Amino acid sequence: MLFHVRMDVAIPHDLDPDHRAAIVAEEKARALELQRSGVWPHLWRIVGEYSNISIFDVESGDELHALLSSLPLFPYLTCNVTPLATHPSDLKATDG
Amino acid sequence: MLFHVRMDVAIPHDLDPDHRAAIVAEEKARALELQRSGVWPHLWRIVGEYSNISIFDVESGDELHALLSSLPLFPYLTCNVTPLATHPSDLKATDG
Amino acid sequence: MLFHVRMDVAIPHDLDPDHRAAIVAEEKARALELQRSGVWPHLWRIVGEYSNISIFDVESGDELHALLSSLPLFPYLTCNVTPLATHPSDLKATDG
Amino acid sequence: MLFHVRMDVAIPHDLDPDHRAAIVAEEKARALELQRSGVWPHLWRIVGEYSNISIFDVESGDELHALLSSLPLFPYLTCNVTPLATHPSDLKATDG
Amino acid sequence: MLFHVRMDVAIPHDLDPDHRAAIVAEEKARALELQRSGVWPHLWRIVGEYSNISIFDVESGDELHALLSSLPLFPYLTCNVTPLATHPSDLKATDG
Amino acid sequence: MLFHVRMDVAIPHDLDPDHRAAIVAEEKARALELQRSGVWPHLWRIVGEYSNISIFDVESGDELHALLSSLPLFPYLTCNVTPLATHPSDLKATDG
Amino acid sequence: MLFHVRMDVAIPHDLDPDHRAAIVAEEKARALELQRSGVWPHLWRIVGEYSNISIFDVESGDELHALLSSLPLFPYLTCNVTPLATHPSDLKATDG
Amino acid sequence: MLFHVRMDVAIPHDLDPDHRAAIVAEEKARALELQRSGVWPHLWRIVGEYSNISIFDVESGDELHALLSSLPLFPYLTCNVTPLATHPSDLKATDG
Amino acid sequence: MLFHVRMDVAIPHDLDPDHRAAIVAEEKARALELQRSGVWPHLWRIVGEYSNISIFDVESGDELHALLSSLPLFPYLTCNVTPLATHPSDLKATDG
Amino acid sequence: MLFHVRMDVAIPHDLDPDHRAAIVAEEKARALELQRSGVWPHLWRIVGEYSNISIFDVESGDELHALLSSLPLFPYLTCNVTPLATHPSDLKATDG
Repeated sequence: MLFHVRMDVAIPHDLDPDHRAAIVAEEKARALELQRSGVWPHLWRIVGEYSNISIFDVESGDELHALLSSLPLFPYLTCNVTPLATHPSDLKATDG
Repeated sequence: MLFHVRMDVAIPHDLDPDHRAAIVAEEKARALELQRSGVWPHLWRIVGEYSNISIFDVESGDELHALLSSLPLFPYLTCNVTPLATHPSDLKATDG
Repeated sequence: MLFHVRMDVAIPHDLDPDHRAAIVAEEKARALELQRSGVWPHLWRIVGEYSNISIFDVESGDELHALLSSLPLFPYLTCNVTPLATHPSDLKATDG
Repeated sequence: MLFHVRMDVAIPHDLDPDHRAAIVAEEKARALELQRSGVWPHLWRIVGEYSNISIFDVESGDELHALLSSLPLFPYLTCNVTPLATHPSDLKATDG
Repeated sequence: MLFHVRMDVAIPHDLDPDHRAAIVAEEKARALELQRSGVWPHLWRIVGEYSNISIFDVESGDELHALLSSLPLFPYLTCNVTPLATHPSDLKATDG
Repeated sequence: MLFHVRMDVAIPHDLDPDHRAAIVAEEKARALELQRSGVWPHLWRIVGEYSNISIFDVESGDELHALLSSLPLFPYLTCNVTPLATHPSDLKATDG
Repeated sequence: MLFHVRMDVAIPHDLDPDHRAAIVAEEKARALELQRSGVWPHLWRIVGEYSNISIFDVESGDELHALLSSLPLFPYLTCNVTPLATHPSDLKATDG
Repeated sequence: MLFHVRMDVAIPHDLDPDHRAAIVAEEKARALELQRSGVWPHLWRIVGEYSNISIFDVESGDELHALLSSLPLFPYLTCNVTPLATHPSDLKATDG
Repeated sequence: MLFHVRMDVAIPHDLDPDHRAAIVAEEKARALELQRSGVWPHLWRIVGEYSNISIFDVESGDELHALLSSLPLFPYLTCNVTPLATHPSDLKATDG
Repeated sequence: MLFHVRMDVAIPHDLDPDHRAAIVAEEKARALELQRSGVWPHLWRIVGEYSNISIFDVESGDELHALLSSLPLFPYLTCNVTPLATHPSDLKATDG
């Protein structure tokens, strides 16, 4: 099933710059890995914010929580998860 | 460019039922038409709410406002529009 | 999977009293039916409010939306849905 | 009586890692102990957040406050407590 | 146990004036009755608002919900219930 | 006249523990002293929070501000003050 | 003592225009009367809003509530009352 | 001086359609008139909302309130006014 | 013209005490100076808060911003500025 | 297309003063450069706040995000971006 996730990143300003750079690089690698696996079909930047809007396609809340908490930036994320359903006017669902 | 739009529908309870049914049917037809044209690539229902989350792909704010205000339900919608940008970790953008 | 749902009921004060009584009775019957089927394991009243907190156990967001929108009071409900996961300190999950 | 409690955990990023690990382990032990005693019948993780939703079954506000403030993580918790009552459509209460 | 309740009253402006006057009178009678019984030890007006702050002394959430929903104005009330506990610096509790 | 005050305490986590213990002890002594003097007739803990709800009985806003700012914890308090009036249905005021 | 009051006026759009005009005229007369009596030393319009910010000088919360609820527009007002104290840097108070 | 004004329009759904059309036409005429006079240098639509963001250039709060309350739609507007000042990095002000 | 300003002061707890005392003394001196000059006709403490409500009488937004940012505590202030206009029921304006 | 951006600046109080001064100077230079290039046609200070309201004129969300994140103060900014469209009553758009 699909979940809409908004993630806001807030890395403390006094974090060691090398540590910060390392985490950000690991985050990117992990994000690409999850996208390749198919569980993270969409990932967009919100203009002007250190935030993203994502769509996840998973089997359960347990799977989604495991994925999100596996992100290297997770300790610095505020995640807002909204469950989605098929819309009755969705073209793909109505074979329109 | 892409815009994230959340639409919350609030049709007054005392609206004439036939009028209501007619508007809802017109809304569905218009939504399908816009999706077929390519400007409305994603449309999801928020679970438990008379609301949707949509992604629009348009040239400008003028085009998006024209599309949204052309929806038959527009007088009863609260729209929240968030501009999107390419995310640096987006697999499609990094040819990952 | 489990979802936490808060429902706030707001029936318009000028609704016909017989219609209101009929909907409320249908709501109760439907709620009992869904509880018997196992998809609605918990239902509590919030003290002092015409609101409830519920736990649903369903396969997907589509199933949950279908259940919620089948409630006779749905047009008068504000639903807030929060997806749940197993807690690492949950006694049942740790066979504690 | 039953209380619904939402707990949001915010451990300062600069807390000593050993101290942090110790507190988290003590918290888990205390949570299991309280669950075994019957006062904490439900404990769920909120997907994507370092937060839980819990149901407590206690005699009074004094007892609940004593339990919550006995949690090793209490100094880092934001607790939101909502008193619950039996719902008139609750299957268990209506011997349905 | 003690509960803090804030009640905001919002009677629709188009309610029949006689009906309104009757409900308000019944509300006062019921409020006095509950205060005499000892379950409603404090009742204050918030300056400038059609609202009150009350303290209730009851056995359980079920009892409090039964009391509040027995108020003639209940359909027009927004109630906010906060459970209270003994404060460690309360003079009465420390036999100070 | 009566004022309703909600106080939320937020002592910085990195405050010296001895200093913290000293301030908390002074706060308790001062709270008891004010209660004995009659200006602070009620003091309750909010369940699950490092917060209290208090009723003060003073002559003026100047007196109340002087009392609150004399509290040893004042630098760490967020105070929310609501002026109260006699409620027309208050049993004590209606010689009920 | 002084109180800061913000009043937001919301007269229902379907109120009879003559009734509306009469209430607004009575409100103005009552406001002038109270200002002349000295209890309402300041009254300002908030630019662009059907709202005002006022300072009242009264003996008690009871007196202020009596004044506010005597306003002909009171049923359509949202009042927000903030108690004031002398500021230590106030020129008038420091005979500066 | 400059003021930033956000206006949200909420015309009641049951307003007579002819009356509504007349007010909207008068509003447009008045808006053009004020723009021509120089007091309303900028007027933008917020995408997806029946709202605008405007810049006004007036002598005082009195003048701005008089202008805003002269708008035919004023009874249906929520106006939010923010006073502006010259920004130290403004190119026009630094003759950059 | 008149502006209503609410200022909330939040001096970091770890600021050097001498530096803090010096700034607070300079703030008081500057506040008295501005009051004597006539641009700051009213200054009140909000009961229980390290906040004030002020009325400023200035020519423009530029002048007000210059005054506020000249305050020694400005780096620690949250200012909320509301433009005021003459109220049609103001006694002083109606030569009542 | 046009975007409305509100930027709130929050530079940590413990940032090295020289570093701070350097960033602020670079910010000003970059702001002037972007204004000269035509993409940032308006920039205003909000009175009493370390905040600005800006209008940007860019081709896309990608371009706007690139511009905003190129600002030296970006790590300390909270940006709120609102897409704009031509208003039907805009004098410039109606050849008025």
